[in-house]
Amino acid sequence: MTVALSGIAQRGFDTAEFARRCALAQAVMATQNLGAVLLASEAEIRYFTGFMTQFWQSPTRPWFVVLPATGAPVAVIPTIGVPLMRACYVSDVRSWASPAASDDGISLLLDTLRQHLGHKGRLGVLMGRETALRLPLGDIFVLTTALDDVEMCDVTKQMQQIRMIKSVAEIDKLRHVCATVSDVFDSVPDWVAAGMPLSELFRQFKIKALQAGVDDVSYLVGSAGQGGYRDIIAPPTDRPLQHGDIFMLDTGCVWDGYFSDFDRNFAVGDASDAAHQAHHQLYDATEAALAIVRPGIRAKDLYAAMDAVLRPGVAVGDEASGGDDVGRYGHGLGIQLTEPPSHTHWDETVIEAGMALTLEPSIVYGDGYLMAAEENILVTATGAELLSRRWGRDLRII
Amino acid sequence: MTVALSGIAQRGFDTAEFARRCALAQAVMATQNLGAVLLASEAEIRYFTGFMTQFWQSPTRPWFVVLPATGAPVAVIPTIGVPLMRACYVSDVRSWASPAASDDGISLLLDTLRQHLGHKGRLGVLMGRETALRLPLGDIFVLTTALDDVEMCDVTKQMQQIRMIKSVAEIDKLRHVCATVSDVFDSVPDWVAAGMPLSELFRQFKIKALQAGVDDVSYLVGSAGQGGYRDIIAPPTDRPLQHGDIFMLDTGCVWDGYFSDFDRNFAVGDASDAAHQAHHQLYDATEAALAIVRPGIRAKDLYAAMDAVLRPGVAVGDEASGGDDVGRYGHGLGIQLTEPPSHTHWDETVIEAGMALTLEPSIVYGDGYLMAAEENILVTATGAELLSRRWGRDLRII
Repeated sequence: MTVALSGIAQRGFDTAEFARRCALAQAVMATQNLGAVLLASEAEIRYFTGFMTQFWQSPTRPWFVVLPATGAPVAVIPTIGVPLMRACYVSDVRSWASPAASDDGISLLLDTLRQHLGHKGRLGVLMGRETALRLPLGDIFVLTTALDDVEMCDVTKQMQQIRMIKSVAEIDKLRHVCATVSDVFDSVPDWVAAGMPLSELFRQFKIKALQAGVDDVSYLVGSAGQGGYRDIIAPPTDRPLQHGDIFMLDTGCVWDGYFSDFDRNFAVGDASDAAHQAHHQLYDATEAALAIVRPGIRAKDLYAAMDAVLRPGVAVGDEASGGDDVGRYGHGLGIQLTEPPSHTHWDETVIEAGMALTLEPSIVYGDGYLMAAEENILVTATGAELLSRRWGRDLRII
Repeated sequence: MTVALSGIAQRGFDTAEFARRCALAQAVMATQNLGAVLLASEAEIRYFTGFMTQFWQSPTRPWFVVLPATGAPVAVIPTIGVPLMRACYVSDVRSWASPAASDDGISLLLDTLRQHLGHKGRLGVLMGRETALRLPLGDIFVLTTALDDVEMCDVTKQMQQIRMIKSVAEIDKLRHVCATVSDVFDSVPDWVAAGMPLSELFRQFKIKALQAGVDDVSYLVGSAGQGGYRDIIAPPTDRPLQHGDIFMLDTGCVWDGYFSDFDRNFAVGDASDAAHQAHHQLYDATEAALAIVRPGIRAKDLYAAMDAVLRPGVAVGDEASGGDDVGRYGHGLGIQLTEPPSHTHWDETVIEAGMALTLEPSIVYGDGYLMAAEENILVTATGAELLSRRWGRDLRII
């Protein structure tokens, strides 16, 4: 594919976007002789139909979409979602009053599956890495029992492969949200100072990101500590920032359903030589990845390039997952905070133009401190475009 | 239980809170002769251990907690979560470098389960309404095959029963977030006017809620339209508010991990008699529920009291789920946007002191418009305390 130059990000998608996505899935289905694919999670249902709502936070009702061998998807959903789903890319909306006393959509789903499976008897289901069916285990047992004559085929890799390659319209949304969040990070030294509690810093960051134009600050984690931090997924404490602290903010902001995911490190007043050096190493590791990224390499090559800088002299694969506890040096990006692939020593995914990726080297230094630095990139025909504004090599002092 | 009078909401919980929660679960386990309960979703893991992070938005890694017959839970988690989990209510943290090339935690989980199941061979799992295991279906099959000598017992109802009764500390958090959001809703007429796009209204609402002190505006949905709206779970459009519009904002805001969940209706400039009457009926339905709510009634009694006002003359149960497509007239509230029970004609849950509930009547009026109004309450020994500030009977005109 050719990655188009930036347009203006627009909300929503043309119908053709969803038709293309479904056609790609249906091409896979044809090669595997699948009569239908069952989608039962937020990300997959949104990807193929455009159904976008925060209502997924309510665990009460199950939602299903059946992708037939040809044509638009069929929604099998609670009545509360019908008005929104009718505006999506679906050929039919079948609904029931949910929550129901019993049989919460399962019979209706089974009827729909049987109708579309026809004589083929082969059903595609996502059952691999990074997937989960959002329905009760008891209902999963009901489904598998009722479909015991049906061959369930795992289509995880094929569906993830389709989602990994972003369209021009998706790329515009990713560019937009990453540029917006870059501006917010750039402003941090203007409004953060010693004495501000980390929780207040988080609150202000969220407000400034919303003011800058993101729809939601869906994800904001980080830590602060004297000389460094040790945890990169925690909510903030009320402890005031102190001279000598290093703090990190890692945010996944959303615009029209698409995520940014990058972090920034700062030191308050002063930092140790070890901290400065760690930040340099992280920068250099990202440079090493940027130097090799292009279509045709593999995710594991990105891992190896970064690991050579982060842990010189350690053979790739000597430790399962890099020099610390993060487990990888980056991942895919899109409608979820993290998507495949994973930059690990074992991920064989071939990098292609149109992939949106994070580069997220991390390192342990000094007295067991952890430091992570992250950028977001778009793979192009010849290399990569930075989606996030490249952060400097020197640790930023506030 | 006695519901204590309001204290000042504080972040976090005493260790005793988690010990009490686990002891309640372990009492259930003892009666059912369960060697362990497997927890594999965000809400259950947080409830029993205190492990709170937005990192759940990354679907990459599975997380497990095993609740043994006695003592604190055992965490079986990716290494990236170890620092945060060590500060939680756990007796042991077992970890692996995730994401892994294969066997992403499953063997470690099986070892842990076997160790705690001992000779009993009975494992508690949540497999009922409103639950879902957050792990790949393929790994569920691996687990069930490896445990084919183990009897899996559904403990959904028992675990939900424990979570439904809020502690004094939980109630303080709910009171705090609901009071904060009430203030924000009260301010809406001060800053909203015809001409403002709904998307901008949403953005400003989020900013004002953060400024008022909530941690996150996790959920904000709503609609606007001439004479009324038809969808109550949609994201906003950019359409400017017009004279004659009715709009509704429904928000789930979070403070220290606890949700508010209520909505408010407004009319811009003017509204039809039918809209005014619908708003009156919704108010009166809530009054009817408030008049009867007390320990000992059932969730279905709340449904019946509201339905009698909303659809006078319709026998309870004549239609499966009320007069519209919402499916229920309210639900439980806590660490998820919605929790059990459901105010439906079939929910037999006995209402108890300490339950936090929403009352959420909805009605169809005029040309197929939908209107919903919601309040949050705490059930007390003799009735209920409003957590949200009661909205007026008359439709608010801006």
